[in-house]
Amino acid sequence: MSEFRQDPISGRWVVIAKDRAGRPDEFQPAPYRRVATTCPFCFGHEDDTPLAVATYPPDVSGSGDRWQVRVVPNRYPAVTLDNGSSSPTHAMSESRAGFGIHEVIIESPDHAVSFTDLSDELVQWTFVAYRDRLAALACDERLRYAQVFKNVGASGGASIEHIHSQLVATSFVPADVQAELDGSRAWHARTGACPFCQLLDAELKAGVRVVAATERFVAFCPYASRFPYETWILPLRHASQFEKTEAGELGEAARFVRDIIGRIECATGRAAYNYYLHTAPFDAGPLDHYHWHVELFPRITTAAGYEWATGCFINPVPPEDAAAKLRLVG
Amino acid sequence: MSEFRQDPISGRWVVIAKDRAGRPDEFQPAPYRRVATTCPFCFGHEDDTPLAVATYPPDVSGSGDRWQVRVVPNRYPAVTLDNGSSSPTHAMSESRAGFGIHEVIIESPDHAVSFTDLSDELVQWTFVAYRDRLAALACDERLRYAQVFKNVGASGGASIEHIHSQLVATSFVPADVQAELDGSRAWHARTGACPFCQLLDAELKAGVRVVAATERFVAFCPYASRFPYETWILPLRHASQFEKTEAGELGEAARFVRDIIGRIECATGRAAYNYYLHTAPFDAGPLDHYHWHVELFPRITTAAGYEWATGCFINPVPPEDAAAKLRLVG
Repeated sequence: MSEFRQDPISGRWVVIAKDRAGRPDEFQPAPYRRVATTCPFCFGHEDDTPLAVATYPPDVSGSGDRWQVRVVPNRYPAVTLDNGSSSPTHAMSESRAGFGIHEVIIESPDHAVSFTDLSDELVQWTFVAYRDRLAALACDERLRYAQVFKNVGASGGASIEHIHSQLVATSFVPADVQAELDGSRAWHARTGACPFCQLLDAELKAGVRVVAATERFVAFCPYASRFPYETWILPLRHASQFEKTEAGELGEAARFVRDIIGRIECATGRAAYNYYLHTAPFDAGPLDHYHWHVELFPRITTAAGYEWATGCFINPVPPEDAAAKLRLVG
Repeated sequence: MSEFRQDPISGRWVVIAKDRAGRPDEFQPAPYRRVATTCPFCFGHEDDTPLAVATYPPDVSGSGDRWQVRVVPNRYPAVTLDNGSSSPTHAMSESRAGFGIHEVIIESPDHAVSFTDLSDELVQWTFVAYRDRLAALACDERLRYAQVFKNVGASGGASIEHIHSQLVATSFVPADVQAELDGSRAWHARTGACPFCQLLDAELKAGVRVVAATERFVAFCPYASRFPYETWILPLRHASQFEKTEAGELGEAARFVRDIIGRIECATGRAAYNYYLHTAPFDAGPLDHYHWHVELFPRITTAAGYEWATGCFINPVPPEDAAAKLRLVG
């Protein structure tokens, strides 16, 4: 028996179809082979990337010093600041210059392939870098939003193995983030409460989808999970702007995200994964209806024809089962 | 230099970022290995699937007869007719029973792995099967929409190699189809014209994104392509309901889709691919603002963190370049 479920904030529908997990698969995935001989992200190879815009610890700046975390412009950017006005080339369609900033956060001086390979210090500096870059870019009036995201493994869309995150800042709020903002605003208007705060309450009471918690953070598999083992991580205390997070909290968040990834890697045999940070737009100020959070999921299923055609995801692992397994492997 | 582009009908944004095509990739994909020993879709293995709901040519029905195309219920369905009322298990979220029909269209009696391996006769029967099943399911008042789609290759989400399509019929219109219907209705209200008819006109005049055309069909790479080599195929004459297509037209459409897939396979080294058919909901009747079409794309890029976080796709191959290449390899 299967069940359609709708996410209360984005309005997105999924089908939880447990029986499909049993279907035979004729194809055996072969592991990707790494063909690189040198790594541009390793310590000592600073000349292989553009000049750093930030290094951590902050007092390390020369390329000869041993940095821990390093933020550089993406050498192959999707958007750039020197993209001028666009010349629309289609009578019916809208176009805009590819204006923005595309940066890479290199999360270790030594070659490491997963966030779970990093020390407490490195994961904390990584989250400090997220916060600092968001805070710095928020001061640029030409930019409205920055998307922080991580691709790990070839099937996660990574082209470089060395553990890193990326940040793409744009002059507009992207559609799916805007849909979440609109959905949560509508919810707040109806109920007077932040839907994420209410979700946290409801999930903690129900318990079945909760994976783990720390003093200040909770991780659960959302009721309308698109992907097997999809997990969301939220601060317990209402907060819409990630860049306002305090240093102590950042370390706790970073270690908790690493813990959750470790559980997912254990449950999936170190599958490729993605995570991303949803936070309020730069010009929004603190929002009563929005709550920053991290969404993460391993890439063990493939979005196929039905998903691309309809926007409705078929998920063969109920989030209740996923959470139970992730609790167990903690 | 890159450019954001918006699809005029769905409202979806993409970034066309040609420079990213030059970025190095440390990972070499290894081909998936097929581990199956027998194929449940080959002629003579009819007992390995549920009983057929239709076979083609239509006068072939016994399992001993040599069918060309065969439609069977999916053995591992995402939705079923015996899914009763759902019991909501979440205070904040909506759920519905997984009610619907999930069928498989087996497109050849012999083992074939791509639509381009099929004869004129087989591709025509396949499209006749699409039409007949849509027409039959449209009479069931419990169903509102059926999504026809094809997954080819392991990275296209296929779990069985033998060439086939699938159909998932539901009691509701899925979100992305509804968004296209809403977008085209709004466009029609504003301009008095079907946006797809206008798009065809504009693309044929501009020429740069047109891949090929037959007497009754046109293929072009959409201005706001999400994926490299994404191609849409539409009938020139306005028509919102695929199931009303005449037999002669169906054969022409099927052969044309096969031709376009052949070009994409040639341009990409036979990459995995998906296609799906967008058509009007069953209860809509003929619509002035909607136009059935096929959207198809090879799976040579991976939707990664940015795409999943924002709904905005980074496409390193401008559709103008893709169309030029696909015209050349025809």
